[in-house]
Amino acid sequence: MESTPKKYGVVLYEGFQLIDVCGPIDVLNVLTTHVEGISLSLIAETKSPISTFPKEWPEKMGMPPFTTSQTMMPTDDFDSAPQLDVLIIPGGMGCFDPNPANVGKPNPAVVDPIVKFINKQYPKLQYLITVCTGSGIASQTGIMDGKKATTFKGAWKVIPVWRPQVTWIPKARWVVDGNIWSSSGVCSGTDLMFGFVKEMYGEKVARDIAVWMEYQRHEDPTADPFGIEEALES
Amino acid sequence: MESTPKKYGVVLYEGFQLIDVCGPIDVLNVLTTHVEGISLSLIAETKSPISTFPKEWPEKMGMPPFTTSQTMMPTDDFDSAPQLDVLIIPGGMGCFDPNPANVGKPNPAVVDPIVKFINKQYPKLQYLITVCTGSGIASQTGIMDGKKATTFKGAWKVIPVWRPQVTWIPKARWVVDGNIWSSSGVCSGTDLMFGFVKEMYGEKVARDIAVWMEYQRHEDPTADPFGIEEALES
Repeated sequence: MESTPKKYGVVLYEGFQLIDVCGPIDVLNVLTTHVEGISLSLIAETKSPISTFPKEWPEKMGMPPFTTSQTMMPTDDFDSAPQLDVLIIPGGMGCFDPNPANVGKPNPAVVDPIVKFINKQYPKLQYLITVCTGSGIASQTGIMDGKKATTFKGAWKVIPVWRPQVTWIPKARWVVDGNIWSSSGVCSGTDLMFGFVKEMYGEKVARDIAVWMEYQRHEDPTADPFGIEEALES
Repeated sequence: MESTPKKYGVVLYEGFQLIDVCGPIDVLNVLTTHVEGISLSLIAETKSPISTFPKEWPEKMGMPPFTTSQTMMPTDDFDSAPQLDVLIIPGGMGCFDPNPANVGKPNPAVVDPIVKFINKQYPKLQYLITVCTGSGIASQTGIMDGKKATTFKGAWKVIPVWRPQVTWIPKARWVVDGNIWSSSGVCSGTDLMFGFVKEMYGEKVARDIAVWMEYQRHEDPTADPFGIEEALES
């Protein structure tokens, strides 16, 4: 029998969305006070500081560039990262190709190295988790083909086109299919993570973390306040 | 007439809680795509990387140490930071004195330099915002004396003792008194920030940001799902 997951990792890349990463991992920070032996690696292509601002803004995606950004420090690069039990792929504007000729396509400079890392980790991963447009990145591995997944409503006309072999669910706070958990946009990743903690470590642990963090969980993954109508308007 | 606030800053210190900072500031990141000229400084005692893990864990506060941590990069130190319109003080385990002889008291190594910085900024600040135990830190300035404020439920028996001259409100998602906005614990800071954005820039901007971030706002500051009963149990 597989033991409960202990070794977590999250991928950082230039242009990740701050809450996509920090919502789920702060749940894990608090989880470590309930479950022994939890580790969490922040993994990027290099160990240099990583900005939430993309190397180049994808101008044609219909949103003006953020004028603020923050920088986090990775703990590992793709070569030095340990084999994980759970790998988290966040979303962010960095995943879109900034070349106007390729508007709405995956940004190869960001996506290709992550795809390679997922492929390296996946055979021994217990779970793959995606947040927001992170499912678009992970979909490029082919691992999600034939599986159900969801993604960011604000890119609903873009991300599913990246991999039509995935069954994209437009109304879901998050989706579980096999060992792949995918959340909808940005803040929904925090609800996914509480759902994941409940499934792995039990409701009492999940509830105790939520009370400490004063977080009201969305507990039903199918109840999506930002579902299809809004997605199709965007 | 005062213009709407543009220059934001958030204080970082060793042992800040990740979501206390990243929830509110990611709302501000997205705000910058709606309102021109917004800036955001991450300000610490020095410009060295700042960890979410305290320099020394306050063992006697009833919680085992986190076994995971993350590191963010400040943009300014307390000397180089510009005069701000809005200053945000987050909470975190770093604010508690790790010396067992001073259990439950403010950690002077963390709190004193922040108090000095608040006092320097406050005369020209438009608003002071606190998240979680950040209200305990800010209370040490005396600026909040005679005002209503709230704080982290998990330290309800500790923080109000730091400054009994403040009227501590045990059942509130957040509290506004004059130009001081204080949120309850951890994740409530994100709701405060959405409330603040609504008040400053209007409901349409706040709603558009929430839809993009797929965040369901708690819009009533007096409706507190983690109110007094839970606080007094802790």
